[in-house]
Amino acid sequence: MTELPLNIEQVTIIGSGNVASFFAKFFHHNGLKVKSVLARSTEKGEALAKLVNATCLSSMPQFNENDLVLICVKDDAIASVSQTINGGLVCHTSGAQSINTLQNQNNFGVIYPFQSILVNSAVENINFPLFIEGNSNQTLNAISKFLKDIPAQIVTVTSDNRLKYHLSAVFANNFTNAMLLAAQKICNEHQLDFSYLQPLITQSIQQALSFGPKNSQTGPAKRQDIMTMNSHLQLLEKNEPLYELYKVMSEFINKEFNA
Amino acid sequence: MTELPLNIEQVTIIGSGNVASFFAKFFHHNGLKVKSVLARSTEKGEALAKLVNATCLSSMPQFNENDLVLICVKDDAIASVSQTINGGLVCHTSGAQSINTLQNQNNFGVIYPFQSILVNSAVENINFPLFIEGNSNQTLNAISKFLKDIPAQIVTVTSDNRLKYHLSAVFANNFTNAMLLAAQKICNEHQLDFSYLQPLITQSIQQALSFGPKNSQTGPAKRQDIMTMNSHLQLLEKNEPLYELYKVMSEFINKEFNA
Repeated sequence: MTELPLNIEQVTIIGSGNVASFFAKFFHHNGLKVKSVLARSTEKGEALAKLVNATCLSSMPQFNENDLVLICVKDDAIASVSQTINGGLVCHTSGAQSINTLQNQNNFGVIYPFQSILVNSAVENINFPLFIEGNSNQTLNAISKFLKDIPAQIVTVTSDNRLKYHLSAVFANNFTNAMLLAAQKICNEHQLDFSYLQPLITQSIQQALSFGPKNSQTGPAKRQDIMTMNSHLQLLEKNEPLYELYKVMSEFINKEFNA
Repeated sequence: MTELPLNIEQVTIIGSGNVASFFAKFFHHNGLKVKSVLARSTEKGEALAKLVNATCLSSMPQFNENDLVLICVKDDAIASVSQTINGGLVCHTSGAQSINTLQNQNNFGVIYPFQSILVNSAVENINFPLFIEGNSNQTLNAISKFLKDIPAQIVTVTSDNRLKYHLSAVFANNFTNAMLLAAQKICNEHQLDFSYLQPLITQSIQQALSFGPKNSQTGPAKRQDIMTMNSHLQLLEKNEPLYELYKVMSEFINKEFNA
């Protein structure tokens, strides 16, 4: 039996959080039809639907094969939401969940935005990739075709590799942000002006991206400047979490550069 | 006794590393006279001196009171270098060393560039602050006056606060860079394309600077998404340093957001 090609014509967004809001606005902005929004919070669902000229649903409809049903809910709710969906090409948007979380469906896949999506993330000038996956060539082709005119890089990535990309992003995004938070806490604690660090932070990232992080590492841990590290640790003595972070990070850097 | 004002007219740079090279070129670029360079490595000293139309010295001269002697050597060599210097206004350029490292001098101070200086760091369009300090109003005024036409923000900062700024910079620069290095190692280990992370990294920093790191934190540790964190830790099982980093960072984020 030859499979007929699927032709996605419209999207239903499940959810009303940051990712739901991003995809609804991103698709709408690029001329793809957002037909409906279904959310636990009627108020947020209606607000989002209104923004993109869509209908806000109060219950799960029967979907047709030209419907893309995009699940934008917390990772641990994806499987149970999928159990309530009938018909359509069903995709989730998670970095960490396998495509098989949706295996109760006939046609399913993944559209994962490789970016940290916040409230009001911009939908113009998107320069980050969308990692896609399909349970068959038919669904993968349908997803690709639906997204073909979208100004973003569409990359086919397996569930295994998507989880690994997600892990690397946790280091590159969540953990770098946490280091900036730690720097700001030190400034606040000592009444220093965090804004003086802005040029350092900007240049630090530019250098890491231009020359690679390996060539951009500087500082007392790399030099194994024990005197300076001890002065720093002394300042952190009353802040146990930052003291521990300082030690663990310095050991990591030492192993990378001096082992 | 009223102190006469000091008038710095020229600089001698001690050293030929990244910081020595930065200051020599930065001063020269902005029309301040670099008179001489003195370095352990004659070859590097001569190359740097030539770049800025200065003389390369082979031994320590007697300095006059219109000389700024700028020590750009490793932190643990500053005190011993200072012992060999006679006359002049002697400054070091370290973030972590107290001004009193130079207390064998009559006139001394600090000029610390609050930036990670690499080989060939640009000297045009400098937007980072220079933190200065003097052992007296006379020396502080002389340093300020000498730097007054330089296109950089000149900020008077005490030794105590300079060390605290330096500590915050270790988190904001060295440790964020180390997190990017970790992300790259994960990509390399699994044959993933690190360049896909570039938009994420750039946006992550922009968001942290625009909205503050506290408002920009996302990810499984903040959400306490145990399932995802366990999947990540499983991927890191064979890489003990990254496994430990992941745990410590996630605990730090959890404490900051969920305690």
